[in-house]
Order: sequence, then structure tokens, then C-alpha cells
Amino acid sequence: MTTKVRVAVNGYGTIGKRVADAVARQSDMELVGVTKTRPSFEARRAAEKGYPLYLAGDGAEADFAAAGLSVAGRLADLLKKIDLVVDASPDKVGKSNAALYRAAGVRAVFQGGEKSDVAETSFNALGNFAAALGKRFVRVVSCNTTGLARAVAVLSPKWGVEHWEATLVRRAADPAESKRGPINGILPTFQLPSHHGPDVRTIFPELSIATTAVVVPTTLMHVHVNHVRLRRPPGSTAEVLAAFRAAPRFRVFAPWEHVDGTPQVMEFARDRGIGFNDMMENVVWEEGLKLDGPDLYFFQAIHQESIVVPENIDAIRAMTNPSANAAASIAQTDRALGLAPAAG
Amino acid sequence: MTTKVRVAVNGYGTIGKRVADAVARQSDMELVGVTKTRPSFEARRAAEKGYPLYLAGDGAEADFAAAGLSVAGRLADLLKKIDLVVDASPDKVGKSNAALYRAAGVRAVFQGGEKSDVAETSFNALGNFAAALGKRFVRVVSCNTTGLARAVAVLSPKWGVEHWEATLVRRAADPAESKRGPINGILPTFQLPSHHGPDVRTIFPELSIATTAVVVPTTLMHVHVNHVRLRRPPGSTAEVLAAFRAAPRFRVFAPWEHVDGTPQVMEFARDRGIGFNDMMENVVWEEGLKLDGPDLYFFQAIHQESIVVPENIDAIRAMTNPSANAAASIAQTDRALGLAPAAG
Amino acid sequence: MTTKVRVAVNGYGTIGKRVADAVARQSDMELVGVTKTRPSFEARRAAEKGYPLYLAGDGAEADFAAAGLSVAGRLADLLKKIDLVVDASPDKVGKSNAALYRAAGVRAVFQGGEKSDVAETSFNALGNFAAALGKRFVRVVSCNTTGLARAVAVLSPKWGVEHWEATLVRRAADPAESKRGPINGILPTFQLPSHHGPDVRTIFPELSIATTAVVVPTTLMHVHVNHVRLRRPPGSTAEVLAAFRAAPRFRVFAPWEHVDGTPQVMEFARDRGIGFNDMMENVVWEEGLKLDGPDLYFFQAIHQESIVVPENIDAIRAMTNPSANAAASIAQTDRALGLAPAAG
Amino acid sequence: MTTKVRVAVNGYGTIGKRVADAVARQSDMELVGVTKTRPSFEARRAAEKGYPLYLAGDGAEADFAAAGLSVAGRLADLLKKIDLVVDASPDKVGKSNAALYRAAGVRAVFQGGEKSDVAETSFNALGNFAAALGKRFVRVVSCNTTGLARAVAVLSPKWGVEHWEATLVRRAADPAESKRGPINGILPTFQLPSHHGPDVRTIFPELSIATTAVVVPTTLMHVHVNHVRLRRPPGSTAEVLAAFRAAPRFRVFAPWEHVDGTPQVMEFARDRGIGFNDMMENVVWEEGLKLDGPDLYFFQAIHQESIVVPENIDAIRAMTNPSANAAASIAQTDRALGLAPAAG
Repeated sequence: MTTKVRVAVNGYGTIGKRVADAVARQSDMELVGVTKTRPSFEARRAAEKGYPLYLAGDGAEADFAAAGLSVAGRLADLLKKIDLVVDASPDKVGKSNAALYRAAGVRAVFQGGEKSDVAETSFNALGNFAAALGKRFVRVVSCNTTGLARAVAVLSPKWGVEHWEATLVRRAADPAESKRGPINGILPTFQLPSHHGPDVRTIFPELSIATTAVVVPTTLMHVHVNHVRLRRPPGSTAEVLAAFRAAPRFRVFAPWEHVDGTPQVMEFARDRGIGFNDMMENVVWEEGLKLDGPDLYFFQAIHQESIVVPENIDAIRAMTNPSANAAASIAQTDRALGLAPAAG
Repeated sequence: MTTKVRVAVNGYGTIGKRVADAVARQSDMELVGVTKTRPSFEARRAAEKGYPLYLAGDGAEADFAAAGLSVAGRLADLLKKIDLVVDASPDKVGKSNAALYRAAGVRAVFQGGEKSDVAETSFNALGNFAAALGKRFVRVVSCNTTGLARAVAVLSPKWGVEHWEATLVRRAADPAESKRGPINGILPTFQLPSHHGPDVRTIFPELSIATTAVVVPTTLMHVHVNHVRLRRPPGSTAEVLAAFRAAPRFRVFAPWEHVDGTPQVMEFARDRGIGFNDMMENVVWEEGLKLDGPDLYFFQAIHQESIVVPENIDAIRAMTNPSANAAASIAQTDRALGLAPAAG
Repeated sequence: MTTKVRVAVNGYGTIGKRVADAVARQSDMELVGVTKTRPSFEARRAAEKGYPLYLAGDGAEADFAAAGLSVAGRLADLLKKIDLVVDASPDKVGKSNAALYRAAGVRAVFQGGEKSDVAETSFNALGNFAAALGKRFVRVVSCNTTGLARAVAVLSPKWGVEHWEATLVRRAADPAESKRGPINGILPTFQLPSHHGPDVRTIFPELSIATTAVVVPTTLMHVHVNHVRLRRPPGSTAEVLAAFRAAPRFRVFAPWEHVDGTPQVMEFARDRGIGFNDMMENVVWEEGLKLDGPDLYFFQAIHQESIVVPENIDAIRAMTNPSANAAASIAQTDRALGLAPAAG
Repeated sequence: MTTKVRVAVNGYGTIGKRVADAVARQSDMELVGVTKTRPSFEARRAAEKGYPLYLAGDGAEADFAAAGLSVAGRLADLLKKIDLVVDASPDKVGKSNAALYRAAGVRAVFQGGEKSDVAETSFNALGNFAAALGKRFVRVVSCNTTGLARAVAVLSPKWGVEHWEATLVRRAADPAESKRGPINGILPTFQLPSHHGPDVRTIFPELSIATTAVVVPTTLMHVHVNHVRLRRPPGSTAEVLAAFRAAPRFRVFAPWEHVDGTPQVMEFARDRGIGFNDMMENVVWEEGLKLDGPDLYFFQAIHQESIVVPENIDAIRAMTNPSANAAASIAQTDRALGLAPAAG
């Protein structure tokens, strides 16, 4: 494909604004526009970056004009100018948008807040890149599922996964959400096992996995507590760490880095300086991983705001370039995003 | 036993003040005194309740006098007047106190912050009551271990435990601790598996158990996420719930009670009105327990401040009354503390 | 008055359940019933305490029956059996209930979430007890306004208040509210000055007062930062502390008590053991009060859940006993609630 | 000055790493090196940026070597190569470093954690730029004092300040600090008035100001609640907003931007993308500012991690360039840091 894929982002919120930036950084993609329903500092920031603004939902041009922001049309106008739309609208809204996309004849990437039947396939770049090749509707799985799927993709081919067990300790709200709680307390998720396991199986249908979840009063990251029974376990903890180090989209912290939890992971991200202080990699700790015979225990921290961003980019590439290759696409995406290349 | 056991509490803090109240409520025990190192509102409250105050450590009588509090002597004086001391001093201090207790010829109950070798046996009332019969030094296991041991004691005899897996989502500080964090973040415990599993085996030596832990920014309760593989599983989730309902020191919440997490559990405790708004039972939710073939998943919430209180009482009784019986002691303790009798 | 005032509590939530307990403890009042719209652990607790349950709003008897709770009728039935209803329904609902109360010919006490025109007078026991004598509809001002009004009532008669300035650092949610945030952040209240100042003037119409407010991520208490310019200042900080010590419904903490903020205040309350671990008094610190010429600076902590409880009791007494006397009513209320008598 | 000022940063922590980046961005300054006592992800990040690492305190080269980091010498070596050192060591350590700097014959900028007598003058760019001209030792006042001083510098010249009153609602810990609390509670600062007022007078000696402070469980920003009595008040709230808009280092948010508190301010900062998602300006809200006759009420949010960074740069320029001009230096600093130019 010599011409760039023309991409729109429908819904310029937590995920949408990140995907928009990521698209804008890819040499094989063009960001044609983004949609917003009301003016905000985020809408102005989009304008400052040169992203054409379009109205979504019941958005009114007059509101934007009053804020000094000009709009280029409505969603329907935008859909006419593009090849593919990334739907980053609120959970469950994507489903109703699907008809619009179909009518407009554009490809669409949905997010994990939608059910899997919104698309032809669910997607994770490390897990099942090829499944999205040439597809018209693809769903990038949610942040937690993405984190789990990546880890499965590293461990399973090498050592076989007999069974995967994970407890997801979830952040209760994003940093900019000021109305959600709890302020002080732990909320168990009354779904046993939780839906995350079946969602991982949309990527790895054969996997034996059971997940549970609790919600805790923090905004920074989720933490997964994993116990994996391996079929052909390696000889040492170090081998597993080496595998994660060699994989793209993993960051392994050493003890001397003094990262004792998610507060320091986010500080690392601020120091690194990728946009929005994002941490798009699965975070693993040397001290937080232990192989005990066939049993592997490890923690991983997942930045709910950004981890799916590179996956969206890879999904776009797979859908629009039938000869795309997983490793090459991942490397291209990560280079453009400023992520470190895999050690291996 | 016709005379009362004369008991002292060394260390009138979070655990000590609760054990003192609990001892004072038992008809077969007498609270002879409690120790403090410095005056505080808690020391005054002890005085208001009529508990004689003794100086511990480098405590100075003048400090207490300045606060209008009179002291009856030092720890050494107190030890001469009693049969048994409950050591509720800070973690690891109990170890050094052991020599004092031995020299004074008194029995001693230690807390779970001490290593197991401080005592002749570790103890949980539901788990191994008989092990403490007639012993001189006994260690009540920590809050998390107590919560796990109670659940093992309910499930194991009935259905056999093939393997127990638990993730402990731990509160970072107690409600009155204003200097400990984190304020916003999750801290994995870099010990895999965590020490809690081996600690449960001080009660159930044969148990196959693996635990992991994270620390989260809340003060109210711990939450355990359990996955238990049963050997002879019952036919339904309802049977397991019935077993917990029939057990002492468990409280099962029904959906209509609208208890969606630890904030409401603590509100329930405030409504119930046991001292300090304590919740001395393991908390289980109907909606938070699910049997799936041989696999049992369930959440339990553990009130770190109070769950070991009834266990301390039972330990005292077992140590000082060689003919004590577990069920009878538990029932007597719970009745005196205002806990509901087991449904079964 | 030799017969007891027959009282109902409409709305058995955070305030209602406390007022119900408080009414039940008064020798000159009878709690005839409380209302609930749905079953919950709180409804069952009411039943356990022997408070007849009535249905409010669209509450359905079948729901209660399913939870094993029997109901004695609906709100309309309850209103026929009583002299006075305490409206503790959600903010702004009281206004629409007023017509029901009027039609039923019962007196009514409203809470501070209603506008002042819902009643004949706004009320604070220390501030304007006499204003409620014989009235049919009275509004107890909100928690923050009650806290301020009490402090005005202590300082103003003695030393005259030239001007009162207060910043209210407000808790974002109550302990049992698990859905409200923020988890991490400070929210200024964009109302300058805030409505609390005018609300205090419903009690002290002549007072010069300006207030501001911010919301912070805590559940325990509000803290007021006060700066009061006095007209006839006393000679020392100690005199002001003595005045607060001598006043009912104030608790002054000394340095030796080691209460460095709201976490320890709540711990004090748990140790004291009044129902729900409530702290119905304004909390003042010796170290947190300083007189500098005519300028008095002081902090006070206000327990939002319980501070208005004794005020509701005094309002009932003033409305139903035209010869009631403020000091006598306050002393009677506080004795029944277990609050310490004023030092003076 | 045609040659660049050679600058070192002693202490590469929260403040130091930001000042280092800021120095590196100035065309008239050269960052010669930074010091660290132990390896960490921050030390490696410094190395990645090309900042030579020197050992401070008891730092050991072997520790750095083990982490794959090379060091260029110790602090003493670094001091020989520079004109000026920015001391960003922990509070009170700067005082003891002063002798080293004096012995080395270098100029030094200290931070607000030191007492004012550590330097010849305290400094704020908008407040007293000229005071630092040619000085050898200058102290940049703390984050809270800087925020207040800037606001004084805008309001006082225009309208005169009769009296300034501020309550500082302080964050309890920085985002990466995982050990500090409280998790749930408010801690009054028992110093009345607080030290911040006198500290502002190190910049504006004639100012009448009284401040108070509380600590709350958040990590993002401080919020100041200000009440200023003006001597010659303007005619409208809008005039005051215009003055803040026209001033450098102020950011005024409009209602349509939907910034309701510090969580969204920080989100704005992340969107803007200055290093570390910093917010070096005082944040003011249109809705959070109100003029009432001579009384001005306004909130301002202060990003404790970064607000002093531009002040450090201006201090360096004033000290090393006797003909430096405040407005020009501020504009040069802000341009290099990516801050918006003042509207006026």
C-alpha cells in the first residue's frame, strides 16, 4: 500500500486522544479528523495539534464557536473522507455506531468495552495478529484482556500453559475522573470467574484460564496477580524474565531501579516522556516473578489508559494491508510511539 | 475451673485494647491490668473503664501524672499478679518479652507479628483448638492467617482441600494511622508465594496452599480472593454457603442486604454496635461465592483490627483449662462478645 | 408534659437511623416507627431494635417479606399515629413531603439539605433554641452550618464577633458511599463566598461571615479553618479554650492525647463507644487554636454523619414543649446520648 | 554575557530533575552535571539524556557500575567545573552544603526547604527579581510561597493589598511517594498562622498576610483558598481575571474547558505535554474568582513538583547577569520551557 490509510477517531476521550496521536505518528496512516460532542480543553488541544474537529452525537457547532473552536462537519461528513474509523466512543455506544460505519462503507476498529460480536474478530497484536488481516470490523480487547493476552503470547508458545489463574486488582477510576469512588474500600467483582477469562479466549480459544477481580481506590494502573501452571517449564526464573525482556511491549524492572509499585511505574513513565506519560507496555518486576517447578507466579501492572493504543495501530495495519506481518508491524508501531525495541 | 484466670494485656494498642475488653467480658477471666508507655486518649479510656494502668518499656509515671492518669506499677509488678499475659506489643517485640514472661512464670499468648517459634504452638480456634490445651506459650496467628485458617477449617473436613490458592488484597494502614501510605497506588508484595501460606500450615501442616499479596490504599479491611480445589465437592454453591452460615465466626451477606464491598461491611458493623464497630467474623457474600465443579471461588473480607480477638480468648481458655472443648469455648466467647451464634 | 411526644422518622438512612436511636433514648419521646423504601441490612437492624417499619415512596411490602422483614403499613398510616415527624429523606425530597405532613396535621423537623423556606425557622440548639418554641415546622441546619453556629454561639456573646471567615475542607463522601469520588484530587466549590455563610445567618441574622469550601478525598469528617475577628477579645488563648471546654457539644483535645487529625478523632469516637462511633461534638484542638490580638484562628472538625443528631432532639423538644429551656434540653439530650456534660 | 553559565544540579530528585531539564533547555546556560547518591530509574534517565552523573553524599561508584551506569566523579569534582550550583538536596541538607559551595567559590541557588538565612535573599521572579541581581547565594521560596508571591505580584501593584488571607489545602505526598499518608483523613497544621505568611514576606516585606494550612490525602496539587482585601479595588471580577490572564505564569480556566478540580488540571497538563506533565503556572478558574466590593476571593491550584522550576532559572540568570531584566528573563525562560506567553 503506497497511499496512506485515511483514519478517523470517533470519540476524542481517554482512548481516542491517544489513538489519534498514535495514528498521526505513523508514516503509513493519515489522521483525517476526530469527533467531539462538546468543547473542552481536550477539544482545544486537538485543534492546536491540527486535528480537524467534527461533531458527534448531538454536539452543537454553536457551543464550539463560543469556545473559539471551529468544526469541519459532523460524523457523517467525516466518514465520507476516510478508509477506517477507530471507534473510541463510550462503552456500548460503539455497537450502535456499527450500522453507521457499515452504511458508510468504512472499516472500523472497536474497543474492548463492546461485546465481541460487534466485530469479525477480537484482536491482540502479540496474540492473533493474522486474524485481523483484511477484516472490515475488528475489536481490540480491553486493557486487562490485552495485558493478559500479551503475557499468554509470550509464555504459551515457549512453555505451554496448562492453566492460567489471575486476580485483577483494578483501579476504580481514571486520573481525570473526579466523581467515581470508592474513596476508601475494596469492592469485589461479583462475577466468578470474571468475564476477563472468556475475553482472553476470544484471542486464545484453547486456553484454560480463570480470572477474578476486585476494585480498589487508586487511579494509576491495574495490577494482575498471575499464577500459571506451565506444561514444559524452563529451568529457572531467569529464563522467564529473559523471555519477557525479549518480548516487545514488556518492561521488566530491576531491583536497583527502585520501583516498588504503581506510583513509581508512573513516575518512570513521566521521566520517559512519551505522550500523556503513558506506559504502553506490560510492567513486570524481577522481584515480582518466581518460578516454582511448573508454577510461575508473577505480578504485572497495566496502564489502563494507554495499553491498547499500539494494539489499535496494529489492528489498522492488519485490516488495511493483507500482507502485513505481526513482528514488522509491532516494531514499526513501537518505533513511531517511542517505545523501546524488544531486547530480543 | 472455679476461680477466674487472671489476665494482663501487655500493649494497649489496636489489638491490646480489644483483647482487654474481650477478657473483661468473659465470666471465667479477670482483667488485672494493661500496660502503656505513654499517655493518650486510649490510656485515659482504659482508666475510665477501670482497667489498672501499668508502665511498659521506658514509660514514665510523670508523663501519666501530667495527664491526670495514675499508674499502678510497671510491667514487672503486673506480671506478679497474673496467671497469663496477652502480649500485644508491636511486631517482633513480643519475642524479647518472652524471657520476661518465662522468668515471671506466667503463661503467654503472642500475636501473629511474632515468628512461630516464639511459642509452643500456633493457634486458631476453629483450626487446632486442642493444640493449645495446657500449653504455656501460644501464638495466635495474624489476621490474614486467621481468616484463611477459619475458612480451611470449614471446608476441609467436609469436602477435602486438594489445593488452596489465595490473593490477599491488603489494607495499607489502619484507620487511625495517619502517616502510612500509599495514597494512590498498588504495591505488590515481592515474596512469591507470600508468607501467609506457610503460616496457615502452622495450623494445617498438610494443607497445599499458595498465597500472594498486594497492598492497596484503604484502611478498612483486607479482601481475600480464594480459589479452592475440593477433593469431594458438594453438589451446589448453596451447600457451601450453608456450611459457612452454619459455622461460627462467619457472616454471609445476602444480595438484599446491599453490601457491595468493605465500606458497607464496616457500616453494618457500626449499625450492629459491637465495641469499636468491630467485625470479628470472616465476611462472605452469597454473590461472591461460586462452585464450578470441584473449583470453589469466593471472596472473604477480613477486619484486620479485630478478627483475632475471639481467638485470643479461646487461646487463653485452652491454655488454662485442660478440659476445655473447642465448640463450647467458641460459643462462650462469642456469646460474651455479642457475636451471633452459628446458624448450625 | 407528662405524655411522651410520639415521633416518626421518615427516611432511615445516615441521619434518620441516628435520630431514631436518639429519640428512642429520650425519656420524653416515643419512637413510633421509621420508614424505608427497600430492604437492607439497615432495615433489618431497625427491626432488630424493635422499630416498626413502614414503607416510604414506592417501597413494596413483597420486597421486605422476601427479606424476612414485616412492615406495619405505609408512611400515610404512620403519620396518623404521631405528633411529629423527623424528615430525613434525601435532599430536596423533604420539600415535597411537607404537604403530606401539613395534610396529616403533624409537626415536622426538616434537615439542612432543604432550603430554609421549608420551615418557619431554621434551628441550632446553642444558637436560637427559643426560635423553635411551639413551632410546627422547623429546619435543623446542615452539618457544616451546625458546626459553625455552635462556635458562633460560644464566642459571640462573650467577646463579640466583628467578622467570621471560614474555609470548609469537606469530606467527599460518607464512609459507606462507595460510588462517590474523587479518589485523588481537590475540588474547589465554585461559589464564592459559599452558601454556608448565609445559612449561618438563618441562625444569627446579624453576623458578618464569609465562607469558602473545597472537597477532598476523605470520608471521615469535615475540617473548618476559622479566622474570627473579635470585638472585645479576651486576654489569652487559654480563655478561649476554657470557653469551648465549658460549652456543651465541644470536645477540646490536649496535646498529650495524641490526636493529630481526623483519623485519631474517629478512633477516639470508636474507643468511647457511642452508637455508630459517632462524634456529635465540635472537635477543637489546644494546639489548633491561637489568639493573636483580636484575631482568633482555630480549626474544628465536624462529623458530618452525627453532629445534627442532638439538634434534632432539641428541636423536637422546643416545638412540643413551649416552656422548654435551652440549657436544660441540651443537658437532657446529651445525657441520654452519652455525651460528656459541659465542663462549665 | 556571551558565554554560557555552567550549572550543576546537586540532588537529582523531584525538583532537581526538573531544574536540570530546564537548564538544559536554556540557550544561555549549560548543564555540566547532576548528582545522585544511588542508582535508580531516574539516574539512568539522566544518563540517557546525556547528563553527566556525579556521586553525592556517601554514594558508591560500585553501585552505579552494577546498574550499568558510569559516574564522572564526586560532587567536589563537579563543583570545580561550574559557575553555579542548584541545590536540590532534601530539606535542611542544603544548609550544610552551603559551606562546600562557599569553599568551592561557586554561586548557589537553594530551595524553599531551607531557612531564609541560607542565602543573601529569598527570590520570586515576579515578586523581587532585582533582589537577586549579582548575588552569590539565593533561595527560591517553596512551592506554596511561590504560588502566593506570584499572585501578590499581580494584584498588589495594580490595586494595593490591604490584607491577604489564605488557607492552604496541601497534598500529603508526591505522586511517586508510596510510604506517606494519610490514606483517609485531614490533618490540620498546628501552627497558627502558618509559616507560609512570613515566608511570603521574605519577598514582600510590607505585606499584611495570614495563612493557615491543612494536609489532605491527595498527591496532585495544593489548592489555595484566598481572600484578599484590596485597597483600590477594580470595578469588576472580569478586570481581575484579565490581570491574571495578562500575567506570565498564570493559567485561567474557562467554564467551557470543564476543569472542575485538580484531577482535570493535571489531565490538561498531560495533554499539553510539557516534561513530566508539569503545570508550572498558578492555576486560576473563572468560576473560582469573585470580587465583592474590596474583597477578592479566589482559588488557585499549585503543582508542588514543578512550580519553582522557572523561578530557579530566573534566579540563575539574575545572579549571573547583572543587567538582566525581569520581564525579559521570564519571557525567555517560559519560551524555552514551552509555557504560553502571557496574554498581555
